[in-house]
Formats: sequence, C-alpha cells, structure tokens
Amino acid sequence: MVPRGAYEFLDTKETRAHLIEQYDNFLFDCDGVLWSGPTVLPGVVSFFRKLRERGKRILFVSNNASKSRRTLLERINAMGIDGREDEVFSSAYATAAYLKDVLRFPTDRKAYVVGMNGLEDELDANGIQYIGGTDEQDCQGLDGLDFSPLASKDALDPSVAAVVCGIDTKFSYRKLAKAFRYITRPGAEGEVRAGEQNGGCHFVCTNEDVTFPSSEGLFPGAGAVWKGIQVSSGRDPIVVGKPHQPMIDTIFARFAFDKSRTLMVGDRLDTDIAFGQRGGIDTLLVLTGISTLEHVHASDAAAVPTYVVNGLCDLDTALS
Amino acid sequence: MVPRGAYEFLDTKETRAHLIEQYDNFLFDCDGVLWSGPTVLPGVVSFFRKLRERGKRILFVSNNASKSRRTLLERINAMGIDGREDEVFSSAYATAAYLKDVLRFPTDRKAYVVGMNGLEDELDANGIQYIGGTDEQDCQGLDGLDFSPLASKDALDPSVAAVVCGIDTKFSYRKLAKAFRYITRPGAEGEVRAGEQNGGCHFVCTNEDVTFPSSEGLFPGAGAVWKGIQVSSGRDPIVVGKPHQPMIDTIFARFAFDKSRTLMVGDRLDTDIAFGQRGGIDTLLVLTGISTLEHVHASDAAAVPTYVVNGLCDLDTALS
Repeated sequence: MVPRGAYEFLDTKETRAHLIEQYDNFLFDCDGVLWSGPTVLPGVVSFFRKLRERGKRILFVSNNASKSRRTLLERINAMGIDGREDEVFSSAYATAAYLKDVLRFPTDRKAYVVGMNGLEDELDANGIQYIGGTDEQDCQGLDGLDFSPLASKDALDPSVAAVVCGIDTKFSYRKLAKAFRYITRPGAEGEVRAGEQNGGCHFVCTNEDVTFPSSEGLFPGAGAVWKGIQVSSGRDPIVVGKPHQPMIDTIFARFAFDKSRTLMVGDRLDTDIAFGQRGGIDTLLVLTGISTLEHVHASDAAAVPTYVVNGLCDLDTALS
Repeated sequence: MVPRGAYEFLDTKETRAHLIEQYDNFLFDCDGVLWSGPTVLPGVVSFFRKLRERGKRILFVSNNASKSRRTLLERINAMGIDGREDEVFSSAYATAAYLKDVLRFPTDRKAYVVGMNGLEDELDANGIQYIGGTDEQDCQGLDGLDFSPLASKDALDPSVAAVVCGIDTKFSYRKLAKAFRYITRPGAEGEVRAGEQNGGCHFVCTNEDVTFPSSEGLFPGAGAVWKGIQVSSGRDPIVVGKPHQPMIDTIFARFAFDKSRTLMVGDRLDTDIAFGQRGGIDTLLVLTGISTLEHVHASDAAAVPTYVVNGLCDLDTALS
C-alpha cells in the first residue's frame, strides 16, 4: 500500500482520466517531467498528442534563463513534443515581461545584464534597452587592484535603472562590481524615474536555483551568480522564477486562465509544487525527477501536491 | 559626559599611559586605525616610535588578502611607520600558515586558488602547491553552455585537496565552477589523504568581508566572491580572517605571547573587537574608522571593547 499524506495518489485508470477532464490548462516543468537529460521520458510524446486532441491549453514553464523561448522550443520540438513559441514560459521571458508589464520599466532607461543570450533576446523582444551581458569587455576581470575603470565619472551609465541577473557562464568580477555599483550608488534604492539621472535601480533575478543541471552534470546556477551581488550590496533581489510569485502572476496577467481549471505539473516540491500553490492552483507531482514520496511525507516537506502520479506515462495510458 | 557601557573610555593622560604599561604585545588593524584611505592618521608615526622605544612587540593584522606581507609592509613603511615583514599578519599569510600548521596540508597535494598574487605568494612561502589563481585560462568564462572543458576526465586535477579563496578581481564563472566541482566531487567531504586520489577537499577562505575599501570607494570583497561557491556546493568554508578564530589561533601558535599582556587595537566592533574577544585578549576601540560610540551602546552591538580612545593620537600625547 502506498503511504499517503494530504495528497491523492492516482493509482487507477479512472482517477487519472478524471484528472485530465477536470482541467483545461496544464503548466509543465520540463526537466524531470518531459525529459531526463537527453532522453524524453516514456509516454510523453503520446500524452501530449492526446492532450492536444482534447483541446487542452499547454504552457512549458522553465527556470532556465540561459535560453530564449525559441531555443527552448527547439529542444521541446526535437524531443517530438510539438509546441509553439507562445506556449513557452521561461524565467528569462518572464523576467522581461515582469520588467515591462509589472514594473513598467521606462523605455528610455537601460538594464544592466548579468546573463547570457537568452536573457538578452527576451529583453530585446520586450523592447527593453540593456548593456553588459555578452559584452566582451564586461566578461573580463580587472587589472589587479586597479578599480579606476569602474570608479571614474563615466564608468557607470546614468540611464541604468535595473540590474537583471540570470545564469552567466561569462560571469566576471567586473560584472559583479558593476552590478554592485549600480545597486549601491546614491539614489539607487529610490523610485525609478524616467528621463532623470540616478533615479532608482531595480534588482531582478530570473531564478534562485543554486545549481544548473547540464547534460554533463551539475554546475553553479543563477542563484550562485547573483548571491555575491546580494551580500555585497545588502539588497535582496526580486526573484521572478519558480517558486516565486512574479512568474505565476505574469502567467495569469498574460493569459485569461480560470485558476480552478489550471494544473501545475512538476517534479520538485520546493520549486514546481510550491510555485503552483503560491499561484492558488492545483498541483501534480511526477516521480520521474528530483522529489520522491519520502520527500512528500517528510515533516519539513517544502510543499504537498494535490495529486501524485508515477510519471506522465501513467496519464498517457489512462487516455484512450 | 561620555556615556559608558561595560567598556572604559580613556579620557585622561594617566589612564592612557597606564594602558601602554599594562601590555607587551599590540595587535593593530590598519585601515581606520593607522590610516584612512591614502592619509596616515594624526600621531600615528610618533606613537609607533614611542612604542618601539619602550620595547613593545607589534603585529599588523589585516584582512586584506590581495597583498602579500611584503606588499602590505611597503604600504606601512611608505606611511612612515617602520615595520618588519615578520610583524605583518595578513589573512593571506594566515591562510597559508593555517593550511600548513593547523591542517598539516600534504606537500604532494595542491590547493585550487580563487584569489590574487598576494595569496599565491604566501602559499609559495609556505611550500604549498597550487593551481588556478592568476592562471590566465581560469580567468576566462566558458563558451555559452558548453561545460565540456570542466566535465572531461582530465578537467580536474586529482591532487587538489583544498579550495582556497580570497578577493579576486579576475574572478570568473570558470573559477566558480571549478571550485564547485572540487568541493562536490565524490569523496570531497572526507579526510585529506596524502598520495591518494580524491581524498577530501578543504574549503578555506581568507576573510568574509563582503566589501573591499579601495581608495576609489567600496567594491565587492572576498565574502562576495566565495558566497556563490558556498551556496552552490552547500558547503560552509573555514574562514581564517577576523573576526574568526583561525587567524588568532595561528598568531598565538607562531608567537609565544602572554595573552594577559596582549591587546588588540581596531576600529570595527564586528571584526577587530570580536576577533580579540574570541582570542581571549583585551581590546581597544579607536573612533577614527567605522564603529562609533553609538554602535558600542547599541543593544545589538557585535562586541563591546575593553577600552575606547578617540584615536592613536590620544595615546601618543599621553607618552612623553
């Protein structure tokens, strides 16, 4: 017998089929749910075909900010799961959308980017000006203890009104120091004022994952990149990605989904399931990734899902 | 009237002169005590001459790990305060000494350095092999999400048995990722075994200051550099420098000072004064730097000194 908490373990064909009937909109985490490393998980391709046949709305919700929606979509399609660009909701996309829709970032101000192409592409797509990022000079260190390149009157662009940070494999001390100076300069804590100098500076991070699961193993993630900016400046960032509120707020701001008919599907209690709960929607945990039933039963569980299945293959075989 | 806590404010010539009589060994923080930015503080040069005339032992105790003892000594001497190399106790020197004397780091193992010349020089002086640091390749970022240069069988040196981190103005994602991999590889948590592969990995940081006071203003410090290694690896470092125990343990291991005749002099409650207290010695706060009497009187004061004077000029004028 499967031990149970407050969640419902869907162990019959009927309960699984009923789950699909209950919801119109399905938000999916990708890694550990759709695929594991380079391999698509069993039943996934067939399950997505059946979801589409039933007219369900699908969103792919990823914390990976290194890639633009287009690049993530290429990966999804390469796995044989058909998708559209407007179905992909990455933390990079959500961050740009958050700046635009929620913070109403002035068009004449710039973001200082600590991050990669994917983040830059999404800022471009939302009409947000930026510097830093893949700029070759910013990817270089300083010459010993010569801080003069960062301390002169012209070293910082006065129109910068946000530091935006995601995973960055060209992270450098120079980027750390520039982000620190933008966030700590006089007036940086204040309101962002369009068209004026030195009027406030947002600090927005795509996600807080401290590790990044690459096909070649774990490496430091976005949370390891921006932590140094946080501790030196003494300023806590707004974190957009799962499990935080801004990304799910942005999803419901962009789509007129009925919350009672929307389900978040993921493999991690601390990110995916907590994320769905904060957004006020039902959640489904699959056991093909990080979290196990033991984690769900633990007294300090990060969150308890509404439902659990072994994997998407369970749902696939429940649908004719 | 000066408000008082548990400390004694030395406001007469007699109490000040008596202080000097009471102690044989004086440990001095530098920044905010001896100098402020490029300027030597009033009375300091004369005070040091008088201390030497009375045969007092002097140590300069600095958290600055970017410089070797020799470089710090040059700064001390340029200010007109005469000193000797064996009187300089920087966190870089203390870190190398800690590896050698306390951890008994095997001579056939290497340290992976996230840090600058000063740290490398002190490791050299203590006969500790190292890689990383100022190596040009390690100062470069990765090519996009291509982690293969760090994931191949030969990417990590199996003889590395410590990650040693200080301030590093050429800090890069590659260094962050290498440090992460050394600290998280199989067996890294275990004992360091000389002559064997994969036997344990120390994680030692020079100091935890999150900012670095340069002559051109504040920039991110050592604590901002190693924070990302800590959060991604989930491993807390041993921090050597003030206010932590290892540096003061190393001082008393190297010098046969009588603790009851030793005084720590500094301008910061949270580093210098807490440091002296942890070492079980008396402390003197000078008000020429960061901490003020208000900080001392605060209910959440990081530490309360044994004595307070306005500055070293007070002690200078008290000595004939």
